[in-house]
Amino acid sequence: MFLAKAILEGADRGLGEALGGLLGGGGGGGGGRGGGGQRRGGGGHIGGIIGGIVNFISEAAAVQYTPEPPPPQQLHFTAVEASESEEVRRFRQQFAQLAGPDMEVGATDLMNILNKILSKHKDLKTEGFSLETCRSIVSLMDSDTTGKLGFEEFKYFWNNIKKWQCVFKQYDPGHTGSLKGSQLHGALKAAGFQLNEQLYLMIVRRYADEDGAMDFNNFISCLVRLDAMFRAFKALDRDADGLIKVSIREWLQLTMYS
Amino acid sequence: MFLAKAILEGADRGLGEALGGLLGGGGGGGGGRGGGGQRRGGGGHIGGIIGGIVNFISEAAAVQYTPEPPPPQQLHFTAVEASESEEVRRFRQQFAQLAGPDMEVGATDLMNILNKILSKHKDLKTEGFSLETCRSIVSLMDSDTTGKLGFEEFKYFWNNIKKWQCVFKQYDPGHTGSLKGSQLHGALKAAGFQLNEQLYLMIVRRYADEDGAMDFNNFISCLVRLDAMFRAFKALDRDADGLIKVSIREWLQLTMYS
Repeated sequence: MFLAKAILEGADRGLGEALGGLLGGGGGGGGGRGGGGQRRGGGGHIGGIIGGIVNFISEAAAVQYTPEPPPPQQLHFTAVEASESEEVRRFRQQFAQLAGPDMEVGATDLMNILNKILSKHKDLKTEGFSLETCRSIVSLMDSDTTGKLGFEEFKYFWNNIKKWQCVFKQYDPGHTGSLKGSQLHGALKAAGFQLNEQLYLMIVRRYADEDGAMDFNNFISCLVRLDAMFRAFKALDRDADGLIKVSIREWLQLTMYS
Repeated sequence: MFLAKAILEGADRGLGEALGGLLGGGGGGGGGRGGGGQRRGGGGHIGGIIGGIVNFISEAAAVQYTPEPPPPQQLHFTAVEASESEEVRRFRQQFAQLAGPDMEVGATDLMNILNKILSKHKDLKTEGFSLETCRSIVSLMDSDTTGKLGFEEFKYFWNNIKKWQCVFKQYDPGHTGSLKGSQLHGALKAAGFQLNEQLYLMIVRRYADEDGAMDFNNFISCLVRLDAMFRAFKALDRDADGLIKVSIREWLQLTMYS
C-alpha cells in the first residue's frame, strides 16, 4: 500500500507525510545477480536484428508489458468519492500541499519533490533529477495535456515510482547506486518489461553511462517513458493486432510531447 | 557555407577553427514580430482539434517540413573523397580534434562543445545544455545507433544548429535570449516547420517556460527532435500516403532511443 509508512529519515514531517511510503515496502533483500556480461556491441536499424547469438527473449515473443490501469479522467480535485479509502484521502490532502493553488504539479515542483526525497536516500547515488528530466516526465504522465499533473496523474506516477525504487534497491543489494549488466536486465524484467536484445541495448546506450551503469534518476526516467510508450501503443492498437497506424500529426504529438 | 568564418569571440583558436562559422552568416537583421498573443489554453487528445478559432494552418495542410538530406552512410573516418572541398576537409580535421581517439562525439563531448560556444554568446541567454539534453540529441542524430556521433552525423547536426541559431537571433532582435508568442511561431516557421495549432501548443507546453518563453537550448533541443521525428516518419512512409504502420518493437525503438 502506497501510504504504508512515512520513513523518510530526517525529512521534515510535512513532506514525510505527504510522500509517505516512498521508502516503505520492499527494498533490500535478495538481488538478481546472475551471470552474463555487459553487452554493448553492434547496433541495428529498425527492422534489423543484431547479429550474433541472442540470449534474450526471441523476436517472436519480444516485447511485453502490462501497465497499471491508467489514471482515470480527472474529476475536479475537490470531488471526493464516498468510497475513497482513508489512505487515499490523506494522500489527496498531502497532494494539495505539494501542488499549490492550481492543484497541479509542474516540472519544477516535481523536481523539488523528487530531489528532496533523494537527498534522504544515501543509497540511491544519483546527481538528482534535472529540470529537463522532470519536464519529460510531466509530459509523459500528462494525459489531459494541461502541462501539469493533476491528482490522478500524479498518483499514477507516484505508485509507479514507489514500485520501481523497490526494484532498483532489490537489484542493487551492494548499494552501489547504479545497475549494470544482468542487474539492469533483471530489474527491467522485475519491473514488468519484457524486451528484446536490440531494444535493451538501445536503452542501455541512451540511459546508462559509458560503463553501462544506470543510476536511479535515469532508471526512473527510462521506465516512465517505457511505461508511457507501451500504454500509448496499446491505446492506439484498437484491434490488438500488434500494429498501429498513425498520421504525421498523431506521430508528432506522441513523440514531441514526451 | 558552414565554414564561412571563425568568429568565436575569445575562444581558443583551435576550438574556434573547429567550430568555424557558428557565428557566421545571418544573425541580427529584421525580426518577425507580429501581433498575436501567447496561446496556452486548452489541450487536446490525439485526434481532437482544440476548440475555438484556429488562426494557424488548418488541419488539412497541417504539418510539413522538408529536412536537409540525411547524413550519408558512415564511411570510415579516414576515407576522404577526392572531390571533397577544402572546407569540408578542414572541418573533418577539426572534428578529429573534438572527437578524440574513437572518432565519435558522445553526449559529454557534445555538452562541452556546445556550452563552450554558448559561453561566448552573451546574447543567447540560457542555462546551457544539460547532459540529459545532449544524450537526447545524440540519440536522435545517431542514425547507425553506435551511441555516439560520427563525422557525417555530427556534420548534419552542426549544419542544422548553425541555421537554427541564425533563426533564433533573427526572431529575437532585442536579445532577450528567449522567444515567445509570435516570435516563437515565426521562428519555427522560418526554420521550415509548418505545424498546426495543437502541435504548436504542445511544443510550447513541453519546451517553453511557464511564461511561454523558450530559451536557446530548449529551442535547439526541440528542433533537433522535430527534425528527427519528421525524418523518421518520412522514412517509414514508403508509399507517401501520410500514414505509417509500426509494430510495438519499432515503436519502442523509435520512441525510446530519443
